[in-house]
Amino acid sequence: MNPRESGASVDTGLQLGSWAGKQVLITGGLGFIGSTLAIRLSQLEARVTIVDSLIPQYGGNLFNLNGHEKAIQVNLSDIRDRYSLEVLLQNKHVIFNLAGQTSHLDSMHDPETDLAINGMAQLSLLELCRRVNPEARIVFASTRQLYGKPKYLPVDESHPVEPVDINGINKLSAELYHRLYADVYGLRTCILRLTNTIGPRMRIRDARQTFVGIWLKQLLAGEPIEVWGGEQLRDFNDVDDVVDALLLAGSLDALANTPYNLGSHERLNLRQLAELMIRLHGSGEIRLMSFPDERKKIDIGDYYSCYDRFQRDAGWQPSRSLETTLERTIAYYRLHQSHYL
Amino acid sequence: MNPRESGASVDTGLQLGSWAGKQVLITGGLGFIGSTLAIRLSQLEARVTIVDSLIPQYGGNLFNLNGHEKAIQVNLSDIRDRYSLEVLLQNKHVIFNLAGQTSHLDSMHDPETDLAINGMAQLSLLELCRRVNPEARIVFASTRQLYGKPKYLPVDESHPVEPVDINGINKLSAELYHRLYADVYGLRTCILRLTNTIGPRMRIRDARQTFVGIWLKQLLAGEPIEVWGGEQLRDFNDVDDVVDALLLAGSLDALANTPYNLGSHERLNLRQLAELMIRLHGSGEIRLMSFPDERKKIDIGDYYSCYDRFQRDAGWQPSRSLETTLERTIAYYRLHQSHYL
Repeated sequence: MNPRESGASVDTGLQLGSWAGKQVLITGGLGFIGSTLAIRLSQLEARVTIVDSLIPQYGGNLFNLNGHEKAIQVNLSDIRDRYSLEVLLQNKHVIFNLAGQTSHLDSMHDPETDLAINGMAQLSLLELCRRVNPEARIVFASTRQLYGKPKYLPVDESHPVEPVDINGINKLSAELYHRLYADVYGLRTCILRLTNTIGPRMRIRDARQTFVGIWLKQLLAGEPIEVWGGEQLRDFNDVDDVVDALLLAGSLDALANTPYNLGSHERLNLRQLAELMIRLHGSGEIRLMSFPDERKKIDIGDYYSCYDRFQRDAGWQPSRSLETTLERTIAYYRLHQSHYL
Repeated sequence: MNPRESGASVDTGLQLGSWAGKQVLITGGLGFIGSTLAIRLSQLEARVTIVDSLIPQYGGNLFNLNGHEKAIQVNLSDIRDRYSLEVLLQNKHVIFNLAGQTSHLDSMHDPETDLAINGMAQLSLLELCRRVNPEARIVFASTRQLYGKPKYLPVDESHPVEPVDINGINKLSAELYHRLYADVYGLRTCILRLTNTIGPRMRIRDARQTFVGIWLKQLLAGEPIEVWGGEQLRDFNDVDDVVDALLLAGSLDALANTPYNLGSHERLNLRQLAELMIRLHGSGEIRLMSFPDERKKIDIGDYYSCYDRFQRDAGWQPSRSLETTLERTIAYYRLHQSHYL
């Protein structure tokens, strides 16, 4: 593997827990964040099992484990299939629950599927855990999307939750299920609300996972980057910083059973991000587009998170600069983009 | 019909809208509130269709329409059956969406069914409405349950939403779906958060719908009323006041697309309520019980609502005294309890 594909070698000074010999399950583990986490865990000598449905519209991609296939056990199945899930959940020390439908627009076009995956399957997973593995640590990847349009910035965990799309509503339910099963049944859950995560292995075929993905595809194809609006501020986390956060959440039992934000102090608007990508790539251009109605209705304007609580309770802070992350990501897709198109 | 079975003749001074000739659908219309609403609407010369699944654990009871069968069309089907629902939703002016699983304990024992009915079926209903009847007025019956344990009293609509059971989480999702479909697709939805509703036609077989139901059954059987705790304050609405509120919500298009509380200024603790029922019945006794663990975990302590917003925007306030309501309810079940056991 090209060492630049992973930023894991960065010395963050974090105590990420003792993982050698631990049995770990990662739902959605062939996806962008899940596979990066799986590789890191295998390097930390954990015994990693992945469950992934490889639904074409989602983030799963077998190539994400390229070079690491022998170290990681892959089980292809859908988390809506509770019989396979019941067996997979057993005897695991830690469950990273990352599976989900992530596209906001898809959630509006097919809301029932979004609910089945992001709501019903999450509830089944917790019910099964309660029965067959109540001792497991469960880390749930949630999203900033459920805050809706920010009422103030940066958005902290006290900000009202007012999701503006079906995906946000169902992710909120899944969070609440996780909290309830901790309160009522003593399950050991921890919830992280992720903001925009970027890095190698993200989906670039379209904007379903992150708009940065399709921008990268356009950039590498020599096409203009299509920027909707352009003035909206966003914060970005390197996937390796997110993996650090997940490992902390999976190892620190003293964390609260309330959601923690991730986030970054590096914020810029979409036009600036596109300009930075063009500069790092060495060429490219931007096509500024006005917002189509369908997107406008579920757009949230400026957004960036306050992650002070997770910094205070877990010691986490992002360590990789946005420029480094983008450089590393562009280099990865120059080599491997054929596997992602 | 015994005139005391309905309090509709009370002159509340409310302008409840023009209902003659209106096509109305009531989901869960064989239940306690749904049937009382259906009868009132038929008296107002609306053309009423009921859809109800008659699931034995829920509130539906064919006897609830006793004496009114000819005026109301009943369609027995489950709102999870989207094919029948699609046809039933068409050509309706107003849809009162009251169907649901109401038992908090059942929602913990079988959370997936609660989600299927209180979440998935609600989402399907809105999707279908959007496609086949986007002009309809939709009134959704929600619940105080989703506030969780009150942080202050009385609980107004700004109170944080922190459901403490699966039922509360799924009812919250259903609310958010209704609001989203109004925001994004322009559906004309209105949400009422009901508190404890009592009156003729409520379920008394067990505590699945309201604890007052099983108390009444115990009282009429000459058994002690089993009161868990006893000191918890509650507010109570007469079902006819709730029907007034539903009619207002179904006719006032200027109401906000944010939830409105119902409630009452008559509040008393559970022991006082049991004592009042015993006095009105003329005999009876109380058995005070300490809380079992299973209930304690999802109990919310004292609760009563502030309904100022709905009073301000719709002119609604409760008009029936608790004593009158209980008298009328006891009289109803003395006559008809065999149909409810």
